[in-house]
Amino acid sequence: MTSSADLFETFFAVIPAGGVGTRLWPLSRANAPKFLHDLTGSGTTLIRSTYERLTPLAGERVMVVTGVKHREAVAGQIPELDERDLVLEPEPKDSAAAIGLAAAILHHRDQQSGCQEQGRGTIMGSFAADQVIAPVEIFQEAVREAVATAAPTAESDGKIVTIGIKPTHPSTGFGYIRAGERYPVEGAPHAHHVVEFVEKPAEEVAQQYVASGDYLWNAGMFVAPVALMLKHLAAAEPELHAGLTEIAAAWDTPEQEATLERVWPTLPKTAIDYAVAEPAAAAGDVAVIPGEFTWDDVGDFAAIARLNPAAHQEGMTVLGSKARVYSEEASGVVVADTNRVIALIGVENIVVVDTGDALLVTTTDHAQNVKKAVEALKEKGDSDVL
Amino acid sequence: MTSSADLFETFFAVIPAGGVGTRLWPLSRANAPKFLHDLTGSGTTLIRSTYERLTPLAGERVMVVTGVKHREAVAGQIPELDERDLVLEPEPKDSAAAIGLAAAILHHRDQQSGCQEQGRGTIMGSFAADQVIAPVEIFQEAVREAVATAAPTAESDGKIVTIGIKPTHPSTGFGYIRAGERYPVEGAPHAHHVVEFVEKPAEEVAQQYVASGDYLWNAGMFVAPVALMLKHLAAAEPELHAGLTEIAAAWDTPEQEATLERVWPTLPKTAIDYAVAEPAAAAGDVAVIPGEFTWDDVGDFAAIARLNPAAHQEGMTVLGSKARVYSEEASGVVVADTNRVIALIGVENIVVVDTGDALLVTTTDHAQNVKKAVEALKEKGDSDVL
Repeated sequence: MTSSADLFETFFAVIPAGGVGTRLWPLSRANAPKFLHDLTGSGTTLIRSTYERLTPLAGERVMVVTGVKHREAVAGQIPELDERDLVLEPEPKDSAAAIGLAAAILHHRDQQSGCQEQGRGTIMGSFAADQVIAPVEIFQEAVREAVATAAPTAESDGKIVTIGIKPTHPSTGFGYIRAGERYPVEGAPHAHHVVEFVEKPAEEVAQQYVASGDYLWNAGMFVAPVALMLKHLAAAEPELHAGLTEIAAAWDTPEQEATLERVWPTLPKTAIDYAVAEPAAAAGDVAVIPGEFTWDDVGDFAAIARLNPAAHQEGMTVLGSKARVYSEEASGVVVADTNRVIALIGVENIVVVDTGDALLVTTTDHAQNVKKAVEALKEKGDSDVL
Repeated sequence: MTSSADLFETFFAVIPAGGVGTRLWPLSRANAPKFLHDLTGSGTTLIRSTYERLTPLAGERVMVVTGVKHREAVAGQIPELDERDLVLEPEPKDSAAAIGLAAAILHHRDQQSGCQEQGRGTIMGSFAADQVIAPVEIFQEAVREAVATAAPTAESDGKIVTIGIKPTHPSTGFGYIRAGERYPVEGAPHAHHVVEFVEKPAEEVAQQYVASGDYLWNAGMFVAPVALMLKHLAAAEPELHAGLTEIAAAWDTPEQEATLERVWPTLPKTAIDYAVAEPAAAAGDVAVIPGEFTWDDVGDFAAIARLNPAAHQEGMTVLGSKARVYSEEASGVVVADTNRVIALIGVENIVVVDTGDALLVTTTDHAQNVKKAVEALKEKGDSDVL
């Protein structure tokens, strides 16, 4: 068994930076997705905050997987990133391909260096680029427990470990993780077996989940030995696994670009939950660490109000350094991406998002419907602002 | 007594084009006041519609009184206007000075041409540039009755005749005219004496007015012999009358500009209602023609919805040739002065006014409060968008 300090030498943080954040349109959009915005008024983009949360654990061992068009923006946000660790997808292929490619590249490097054979293969931790977490120390402690839980032993290939969030309300917008018995492992006093992952529930079901105390929100955080990730991926999605292995074999060689361009478009699109997490849970290979930190995926503009208590101005939450907002008998959220004067009169729980080429007016209660509007605009041929 | 055709040779239409229309901010503003906008979706600005409503009665005998900074805009809207009949105020001095100057200039021309002595002095009709009236034929018939009623006779100097609007609801936003007995005059079967003008009433008082059938809305429309107008002005506001007479004496001469620049700033600011209408009514010199046409002063954005039944789109009233509006579970008014995409989700009776440098979001119920917001913005130092 390796010590905790040794374990962290094998840890590699992976940040999948995909997802436009359609519910945050028109602020967040194809060319300026959610993770490139400062949505908490902290002065830091979500992806930079994610990096700063992970680098105390991973050091320079951080990889970002993002769309090729975000190359410059991401490099600008994380100048510390090694070019070899900025993985650029030619087109979006969902989370299984993104996280799977990171796993395949890291596994290939392990094989090249001989680490895999020495039982010191990489343990990856995948954390989305667009989530808000506090306090950072409690998150980091959960990751430490997850790495300890994930580590292979003489008897096993280790575990795929998810960090689940203690639900604060019966949300119908998240999937849930059903925790089972305690999983006894050194360095992880809170580890539990995972019985199953369940999809977004109906309201009453969500209430039962929360009341039972056995369910956690699935925040999509996975810590696992790359070899174990790939073993489950190969079983559930052999075609995807084969393609990713082919790309990974060419990575860090002159063939890297050509192989990526040729193979990537042929890969099936699927979510990591279906391709790895659910079958692995069914096989008894998944554990969970309950996260006691607060977690927000900034799913819509209602979250913006929640996450910016300091930005209150005349009863409104105002985001935007150039904002000139006047409000009277009004409450809600203004996100100003321009320096126009915005006057709000007699509108309660309003959401106004003002950008150069598009304006959204809705309410915090309807914030989830923004996605539908974006789909409708696409159909109407207004894609220039999406 | 002169015939009806003769009477119309003495008629001169005056269009005071003042007033920013603060309640229509940010569409209407100091440099682009209400009368320069098309607020009915007709394709025609309010001032052009006003001109087209009057020229069938007045021919080329139309005068516009407006602010000096609107010279080009007004000339562009009414290219038919003789330069001598475009009266430019160096600064706003309220309606008594504006209408009084028109009366003084027309009276001076009468004296120059000798018409006054022949008992054929000008009958002016003053109609604000920013009102919406339909059908035009009924309005014109009311003006014809007003001119017939206003005309001097062997026994009298004529009448100051107002055209009052039959109230459709107990508005507290307008002043009222209390009509008295029938005033028997040839060519004006609907003329009545005016007992008094009353200011904007409280709700219950307005209800009593409407129930009584004796009260009409004061739309600020006056038809009167210029000599009679000036007689009352001289009595109530001798200083104002003297100043206007001095300016008028220099009008159409090389001294016009210098005299205007010197005298105008010294003139008292007051409304035509106080300076002429109310004292003239007290003296028994005012009659009224009830207007059976529909009339709207486009007082706020709620009026925009009312006046644009043809502009309905997905439950919204949308004004603006370049508008790109998407709405879902939404109702209200959008006035788009840009070509930005505007998405409205789950907002009822909303008012969104989108201009290049300012955005207003309110509701039709709060539309009257826009004026207060503009005052607050002025105090905050945001005058660049006012």
